[in-house]
Amino acid sequence: MPNISQRGVNMPASPIRKLVPLANKAKAKVIKVYHLNIGQPDLPTPQVAMESLKHVDRKVLEYSPSEGILSFREKLVQYYAKFNIHVNVEDIIITTGGSEAVLFSFMACLDPGDEIIVPEPAYANYMAFAISSGAVIKTIPSHIEDGFALPSIEKFEALITPKTKAILICNPNNPTGYLYTQEEMNQIRDIVKKYDLFLFSDEVYREFCYTDVPYISSFHLKGIENNVVLVDSVSKRYSECGIRIGAIITKNVQIRENVMKWCQARLSPPLIGQIIAEASLDTPDSYMDEVYNEYIQRRDFLIEGLNRIPGCYSPLPMGAFYTVAKLPVDNADKFCAWCLSEFEYEGQTVMMAPASGFYTTPDIGQNQVRIAYVLNKEDLAKALIVLAKALERYNQL
Amino acid sequence: MPNISQRGVNMPASPIRKLVPLANKAKAKVIKVYHLNIGQPDLPTPQVAMESLKHVDRKVLEYSPSEGILSFREKLVQYYAKFNIHVNVEDIIITTGGSEAVLFSFMACLDPGDEIIVPEPAYANYMAFAISSGAVIKTIPSHIEDGFALPSIEKFEALITPKTKAILICNPNNPTGYLYTQEEMNQIRDIVKKYDLFLFSDEVYREFCYTDVPYISSFHLKGIENNVVLVDSVSKRYSECGIRIGAIITKNVQIRENVMKWCQARLSPPLIGQIIAEASLDTPDSYMDEVYNEYIQRRDFLIEGLNRIPGCYSPLPMGAFYTVAKLPVDNADKFCAWCLSEFEYEGQTVMMAPASGFYTTPDIGQNQVRIAYVLNKEDLAKALIVLAKALERYNQL
Repeated sequence: MPNISQRGVNMPASPIRKLVPLANKAKAKVIKVYHLNIGQPDLPTPQVAMESLKHVDRKVLEYSPSEGILSFREKLVQYYAKFNIHVNVEDIIITTGGSEAVLFSFMACLDPGDEIIVPEPAYANYMAFAISSGAVIKTIPSHIEDGFALPSIEKFEALITPKTKAILICNPNNPTGYLYTQEEMNQIRDIVKKYDLFLFSDEVYREFCYTDVPYISSFHLKGIENNVVLVDSVSKRYSECGIRIGAIITKNVQIRENVMKWCQARLSPPLIGQIIAEASLDTPDSYMDEVYNEYIQRRDFLIEGLNRIPGCYSPLPMGAFYTVAKLPVDNADKFCAWCLSEFEYEGQTVMMAPASGFYTTPDIGQNQVRIAYVLNKEDLAKALIVLAKALERYNQL
Repeated sequence: MPNISQRGVNMPASPIRKLVPLANKAKAKVIKVYHLNIGQPDLPTPQVAMESLKHVDRKVLEYSPSEGILSFREKLVQYYAKFNIHVNVEDIIITTGGSEAVLFSFMACLDPGDEIIVPEPAYANYMAFAISSGAVIKTIPSHIEDGFALPSIEKFEALITPKTKAILICNPNNPTGYLYTQEEMNQIRDIVKKYDLFLFSDEVYREFCYTDVPYISSFHLKGIENNVVLVDSVSKRYSECGIRIGAIITKNVQIRENVMKWCQARLSPPLIGQIIAEASLDTPDSYMDEVYNEYIQRRDFLIEGLNRIPGCYSPLPMGAFYTVAKLPVDNADKFCAWCLSEFEYEGQTVMMAPASGFYTTPDIGQNQVRIAYVLNKEDLAKALIVLAKALERYNQL
């Protein structure tokens, strides 16, 4: 048999997925596993989205246009306007999830060997898409002590080389839940401008900002309009991760032309997903308000609970539905695995994503985990009790 | 603004798509355009598939497993068995269309710089996926004079270098409609074995073989079980190109593990597409028979008609729903563009894909076009008349 690709062999397994076999074993033993590890909201998909499935009135489920269905893109123009993001229909290209939006942004803007600077901890799959496209990710650690605020401008400048082509931010942030301030966004704008970089801006959690300050998009930054590539997805805001619909939004015509070549190669984004996503744009405000309030309550409950466990610390995240918390353990990888393989408390255990998978700098974040608050409060309460018991027992071993 | 990726800039536009702006202009002038250029069947999607949309009984449209829904994969095991392709459920990984299956096969098996040998003319998007993955496609011309039969073993061997890692075939073939014989498949097997190569086998048109001989899959070839990576898609067989569901099938555990890393990075294939595809496996034989007979009739009608036009020649394709035909013109690119921009006959014109886009060897196939018989016979008849008139007029210019 010929040798398979080394880039795949060398790629680390997803931090969210590598514990799955242990979780399956725990479940097989009839242990209730609280899934704090995933980014799949438990909240129902809006009714308008589900209803749209019943009214697909077509004879042939044919290819949609490579750039996405026009009526859907037109409706997105109005949607973005509500966030003071003013785009034309041709600025929007529909993708197969936010994942493909990241990949095609890299493919269209970067050549093999080009470097992207990313604050870490960062969404682990960026790394996979960088490997796919031959780009190189350079990370700057942010720190739990200051709530994962943006690293200083000097830290960015220290990493800039002739190969640096882009900065990538995720705002509100996965995994930390951090929300960049106006000052921080201006800082990013200044670096992007000074070094003429692309700014990849993953803003899929824009609905989930828990401050009274209006949401700041990279599209609001003046003077870098041609540098910004916004990555979006309907997955999180309408709890419909499975339909795989995202978008690339950019004012840069050259990037769009380049992106379209990759779009045409894969023919089209999912047709039914687009129909559902288009219908989802009519989701009533009441649904969005309910979801928003639910997440705020869960966040407050979770963070308070975490900080009450001896030795635990979590900052209060201002966005998304994650937090990165510090645990009183040396090695969160081992602790998370132990929770699934050795531990149970009254027939229950917890599954968390060790934060090490979100860092590329060695030895950082080893005592941290990412926790998603995608469970209801009753389950969160139980999960917190189980976590406290697990830490107690683990530290007596 | 920073420079965008050169690999995208250098990538040729899709041969099927580059005439689209002209076709749109023709339509705007209320000229009826017969689309012989696309691979989108006009036939209806099976009723069972459409019905499945009405019965999606879920609260949350959540991520499916990265490898695809288990019940769907189990049903595919039975489907493949009907073609004497005996696989286990773990041999099957669901992808977002055949497109992603090709890309992930390349990503998992090849490192940048590795070479794939492909008989040409070949499906143009293979090139895009090769560029994406950093692999290099080396083509061997096949010839219209012998009906696009497999090039000789010597032609393959002449291209083999230490960088050669794979052979890629599409069988039945897009764009030629050629169907490899047992002898040709054995020839491929021998080269794969002798040089220990991967065999990427795109078999998405397996339902459309117009001989009485049983269909020969790469999975039927003995002694190279660990080398074969089968690429599949439900798009063509159920006329549901828009749902974007394909598969990678391989007995090679290492490849599967590697493919799964890319699958996990993109999280999951489309959920609703999988539900439709699973339902489609219950499509009654009567539907498949009707479609099959329809294509045979169209093929016979089209090829006879083409060969009756002075100076035209098409072999009789034994599979898929395409043919590559020779026209009495110097440059089919120019002729196809002219048909859309300058010509009309009784308010009608034809759109065909110039075959040059399916070749990488320069100056081959310049007088050839790919014609898809995805129109009903009445429209095919009209399109043939229009084509004959167009050639007549073009050659008088």
